Amino acid sequence: MTQALRHDAMRARNLALVLGAVGARGSVTRAALAEMTGLTKTTVSKLVGDLIEGGLVVETGTVRDGERGRPGVEIRISGQRVAALGLEINVDYLAVCVVDLARTVRLRRTQAVDNRAAPPVDVIARLGDLASAVVDEAVEKGLRVVGGVLAVPGPVDMTSGVVHNAPNLGWRDVPLASLLRFPFPVRVENEANLAALGELWFGSGLPDFLHVSGEIGIGAGLVVRGRLFRGAHGFAGELGHVVVSPAGPPCRCGGRGCLEQYAGQDALLTAARAATSVRAATSVRPAADTPPAGASRNVPAGIPHEDAAESAGAAHEGPAEAAGAARETPPPEMLLPAQQGVSWVLSRLREGDENARAACERAAWALGVALSSAVNLVDPDAIVLGGIYAPLFPWIGHMVADTLKARLGQMRGAVPPVVVSRLGAEAAALGAAGQVIEQVMADPAALLHT
Amino acid sequence: MTQALRHDAMRARNLALVLGAVGARGSVTRAALAEMTGLTKTTVSKLVGDLIEGGLVVETGTVRDGERGRPGVEIRISGQRVAALGLEINVDYLAVCVVDLARTVRLRRTQAVDNRAAPPVDVIARLGDLASAVVDEAVEKGLRVVGGVLAVPGPVDMTSGVVHNAPNLGWRDVPLASLLRFPFPVRVENEANLAALGELWFGSGLPDFLHVSGEIGIGAGLVVRGRLFRGAHGFAGELGHVVVSPAGPPCRCGGRGCLEQYAGQDALLTAARAATSVRAATSVRPAADTPPAGASRNVPAGIPHEDAAESAGAAHEGPAEAAGAARETPPPEMLLPAQQGVSWVLSRLREGDENARAACERAAWALGVALSSAVNLVDPDAIVLGGIYAPLFPWIGHMVADTLKARLGQMRGAVPPVVVSRLGAEAAALGAAGQVIEQVMADPAALLHT
Repeated sequence: MTQALRHDAMRARNLALVLGAVGARGSVTRAALAEMTGLTKTTVSKLVGDLIEGGLVVETGTVRDGERGRPGVEIRISGQRVAALGLEINVDYLAVCVVDLARTVRLRRTQAVDNRAAPPVDVIARLGDLASAVVDEAVEKGLRVVGGVLAVPGPVDMTSGVVHNAPNLGWRDVPLASLLRFPFPVRVENEANLAALGELWFGSGLPDFLHVSGEIGIGAGLVVRGRLFRGAHGFAGELGHVVVSPAGPPCRCGGRGCLEQYAGQDALLTAARAATSVRAATSVRPAADTPPAGASRNVPAGIPHEDAAESAGAAHEGPAEAAGAARETPPPEMLLPAQQGVSWVLSRLREGDENARAACERAAWALGVALSSAVNLVDPDAIVLGGIYAPLFPWIGHMVADTLKARLGQMRGAVPPVVVSRLGAEAAALGAAGQVIEQVMADPAALLHT
Repeated sequence: MTQALRHDAMRARNLALVLGAVGARGSVTRAALAEMTGLTKTTVSKLVGDLIEGGLVVETGTVRDGERGRPGVEIRISGQRVAALGLEINVDYLAVCVVDLARTVRLRRTQAVDNRAAPPVDVIARLGDLASAVVDEAVEKGLRVVGGVLAVPGPVDMTSGVVHNAPNLGWRDVPLASLLRFPFPVRVENEANLAALGELWFGSGLPDFLHVSGEIGIGAGLVVRGRLFRGAHGFAGELGHVVVSPAGPPCRCGGRGCLEQYAGQDALLTAARAATSVRAATSVRPAADTPPAGASRNVPAGIPHEDAAESAGAAHEGPAEAAGAARETPPPEMLLPAQQGVSWVLSRLREGDENARAACERAAWALGVALSSAVNLVDPDAIVLGGIYAPLFPWIGHMVADTLKARLGQMRGAVPPVVVSRLGAEAAALGAAGQVIEQVMADPAALLHT
């Protein structure tokens, strides 16, 4: 390594050290930064100068430095210049958001669209239009979008950016990363992973949890000590294909009785509409693929009741009582396009419709069964229900928790609590933008050099 | 921090650095150690002197140091002094082993005993006798046992050493660590975790895998990039209670249709003996708890065939053909006491017994279903079947792989290969001893100070 290269590497490391210290403290003087990092005050001043010039930090007012009695200027992360783009392609919506370096969400747009009908290039073109408009708006606000991450509902090869199989989009081996055209780097990652990171950075703030992303597919992201668990190939967290009942309804993944067939958005809507006239108008699958709840020859009709009977009290804790937990429901503006199908279910539930109630009971029971397998395997500290399960939480939360307790209570000192996500359908796009922010914080030098 | 404390901390760090470099290289000169660690030759010589005095490394012969043309003495890890004790309490056997610092297994003993009938203190006393005899033998060989780890078949609170619940032993909240009496520290940990580490350090050498520990209970240990994944509370990997069929036979964990009820040793033996006269003599559970294979009202009788039909060719790849893979079977001496029940099944299989074959088919199908959920959730690079599944591998391996392929093939580019463990019932005790060795390698100063 030459002298110059060595100097560059050290400067890069120290810039990250100082920026990280500012981020950790919120606001801090140069003197305190020198103490925190072990660098000399001269070095800190030089580095802070570079970070200010790059728009990553700003000075704010003057304060008394209590310990020494000398006046000092505080430094904090700047939300005025560097920004990140979060993008999401999901089965029935597109979402984009812009988050600044201070982690404030500055812009967000969603568009309801059935992406199952469209070839990947068309979906990407539409997403590009939506993103361009938002990036233009960000530029008008003085922001510079430095990178993006795109969330997709399926396993992604993180090296090549190829989506191997997104069965609910009908995509196979789509080289997504190479089809994107942005004036800044955009990586592609699995939606459920990013939703879990969204929850970590913009949601509950819990450090250890399993986040369940309920959409037409069902993904999960496991966060352990503040870090995402990806597995050997980055394909971990495919909760939607965990077995609920091995001889159950066939699934698009090739298996049978996967969780998605009981608790995915399509399965839920189909079950809720079973006895109504709107079914034919909105169903997108051949009827033979999705037997109505309770009528399937493969699913024992008594299953939800069996579990309810096992956990004393569960049978009496119906949706009516559970609705008292409505304070935990996200506000109406969080019912984004992804959940419009679910808002129909919600209105039926509020009207006391029996089909809707039975559909939720079946979905909640199946979620409880699959999550009991997940808890046995990965031992999370909490379970966060997001996506469509957030607005449905008052109707399903207790039932999921009861099924978990019935299956896990005797083996474990404590069954992980089941809580609701406050982010809803935005979680993945926020997690996507948050990943770019993390990257800037970890290597600010890469940004300052460009 | 005082000057002396600072010096001690730096010395401890450097001792670990040098010992780690010796371990990584196998054998290495002092000069090469100085280059590898960035320490001065004087410092390296002093540290190596301390490590030799402590019996952690030895000098071996003289070699030409090619690069400089000066003669150098090579240093390597010593297998002559420091040793670790691995212990295991399982449902039907006790195991102990002594492993030296060079990772050679020096002593091993197992004892067949039904621990379900005995109170914890009696089990611990018997284990203590077995361990004392082995430690005495180790001392006669000039070894010094510096610590131990005890494997138990259930989740363990690693801070307190309390076994919360080991349902197959009938133990609840047993303060195991505080009941042990050894002249060196002994920690307690979950058997399946340690078996996975045994496989990592003494088995295949794969860096990413899910190790399945088949005993009366079924545990799993996930190794990701050479490290054990423990989950938020250290309770990850309870594969035996992953749901195979949610309305299946009741399980001692409080759930129903857990994997253990299809593929655990008791379930397998009961199914294999279903139509023979030996059943009553050896069954340890009330007959009502374990319905015979295919006769349960809860388990759809056609399930194994459904999956076999899904994967073309599977139905024709019966045990007769699979027996061609007998080169993959561990040698007879690896059929330790835990597997004596299984050796009866093996002899029946070799005789072409239909009940034994059907019992294995059912167990393999259930393993495939539960493992497909596990692969979806944790994305391992390979699956290693250990414990009783090692000798059974020629009869079950293909069927497990076929079920996995049928359920996962369409979603993933590659389904993780299913391979056999070469360690058998010894894996956990070896992993336990290996953990002590890891600890000595990470902090040799702690040992040199005592």
